Amino acid sequence: MRPDSHRPIGVFDSGVGGLTVLKALTRRLPAESTVYLGDTARVPYGTKSGAVVTRYSLKNAEFLRTEGVKLLVVACNTASAVALPALRAHLDIPVVGVIEPGAEAAVRASRGGVVGVIGTPGTIRSGAYQQALEGLRPGGRVLARACPLFVPLAEEGWLGGDVPRLVAREYLAPFRGGEVDTLVLGCTHYPLLSEVIAEEAGSGIRLVDSAEATADAVAQLLEAQGMLAPVSAELRHAFFVTDVPERFAEVGARFLGRPIERAEQIDITYV
Amino acid sequence: MRPDSHRPIGVFDSGVGGLTVLKALTRRLPAESTVYLGDTARVPYGTKSGAVVTRYSLKNAEFLRTEGVKLLVVACNTASAVALPALRAHLDIPVVGVIEPGAEAAVRASRGGVVGVIGTPGTIRSGAYQQALEGLRPGGRVLARACPLFVPLAEEGWLGGDVPRLVAREYLAPFRGGEVDTLVLGCTHYPLLSEVIAEEAGSGIRLVDSAEATADAVAQLLEAQGMLAPVSAELRHAFFVTDVPERFAEVGARFLGRPIERAEQIDITYV
Repeated sequence: MRPDSHRPIGVFDSGVGGLTVLKALTRRLPAESTVYLGDTARVPYGTKSGAVVTRYSLKNAEFLRTEGVKLLVVACNTASAVALPALRAHLDIPVVGVIEPGAEAAVRASRGGVVGVIGTPGTIRSGAYQQALEGLRPGGRVLARACPLFVPLAEEGWLGGDVPRLVAREYLAPFRGGEVDTLVLGCTHYPLLSEVIAEEAGSGIRLVDSAEATADAVAQLLEAQGMLAPVSAELRHAFFVTDVPERFAEVGARFLGRPIERAEQIDITYV
Repeated sequence: MRPDSHRPIGVFDSGVGGLTVLKALTRRLPAESTVYLGDTARVPYGTKSGAVVTRYSLKNAEFLRTEGVKLLVVACNTASAVALPALRAHLDIPVVGVIEPGAEAAVRASRGGVVGVIGTPGTIRSGAYQQALEGLRPGGRVLARACPLFVPLAEEGWLGGDVPRLVAREYLAPFRGGEVDTLVLGCTHYPLLSEVIAEEAGSGIRLVDSAEATADAVAQLLEAQGMLAPVSAELRHAFFVTDVPERFAEVGARFLGRPIERAEQIDITYV
């Protein structure tokens, strides 16, 4: 066991969406402490450029390092798509993104058909999922589409009814009744809309959410490096945000599946 | 005529929305040069806290001051709602927001009924329109509602059809068939959706857009202070953004009503 194994896992996201990844992590690794940072002062990342998202990601990682984290999980798909090389170059701890695990889960789930990917404009434009899938199954076809209105719908809690259904119908038309048999939910907000997404994508398509796959990847990495927390370690789950915490705690509970008792605002001039 | 009268008018917004105000300004004051800053690296402001929006607004103003502007127009409703006192305290030039002019236009338009206001969560939560309207017509009733999905719809160009119609129907239900006779579009994005908003608000309701009223207020202020640009002055319309300029130029043309030839990205570490 390494001496820093009792330290927490750091997780950052542009806002509340990454709490779906945190939820999977704490279920998969119940003995691990976590420190979560939601960059709510600059959310969303998905409509911004790679350079700006990389800058914000480095600042988030810098803060989490001061919290003594032993491993960094980039829970935001957009940040995972564009900022992993910069984060790995600047940090001396392992960095895990959500794209590689999500792509692996999709390849496992697909019966050899075409894999579909939906995400933010930033994620889709980066081509990160397309490249990861091509690396795992060379020559396999990928159909990708940006769905920018899904994030505001999930944030507002419009998860069912006519509006989400019509938006999903419009976005998912290219996937319906074609060769796609697996659809990657390439944004942490999308699992909240999985019911309408599944219905509008059509019955032949299996949805893949990278949260569980990412939690598995983190567990394997910690185990391989002898960095799993000792079961006797004191548990701590801390939440930080860059804007006022009230709305984060309120909306975040929906993503995390349990109440958030306390989230602390960090100095915005720092990040 | 004041010696600085040839200087440009500075305009800032969280992104592209303020271009509707710039459009009204350049039509009302064709001899004035302008410098526009869209804070596209941190858009949107409407879902963020007053403290964070104030911080961003001060940074935007600081940049425009280095461009030598003679007057500052805060084209963003959310920033106008929360940051005017701080901006006025920090700047030695006149600062004009969009809320006071919009509220005045609404009171002129209303036949004595209830005035309705729609805007971002930040604008509505601030109570700025409600206070301005109360100041202009003490005892008059105001009905306000936040419509968070209108901004992403306008940014994505989903301006007509079933989705915007259903979203508008949901948000505008409290205004339909009641005592409201005037509805303030309290966000610069909303004029793009004015057709569905007008239809779903109902035929008895007049829409008020603060862009024209703000341009009038600026014209009056410049005239009163002897600061109108000499007609012989060289014209310059400059555009700056905090994220990459491509998408700004593309989406912005829809808001401005004419192409944007060039937008320059300013150093994000500055703002």
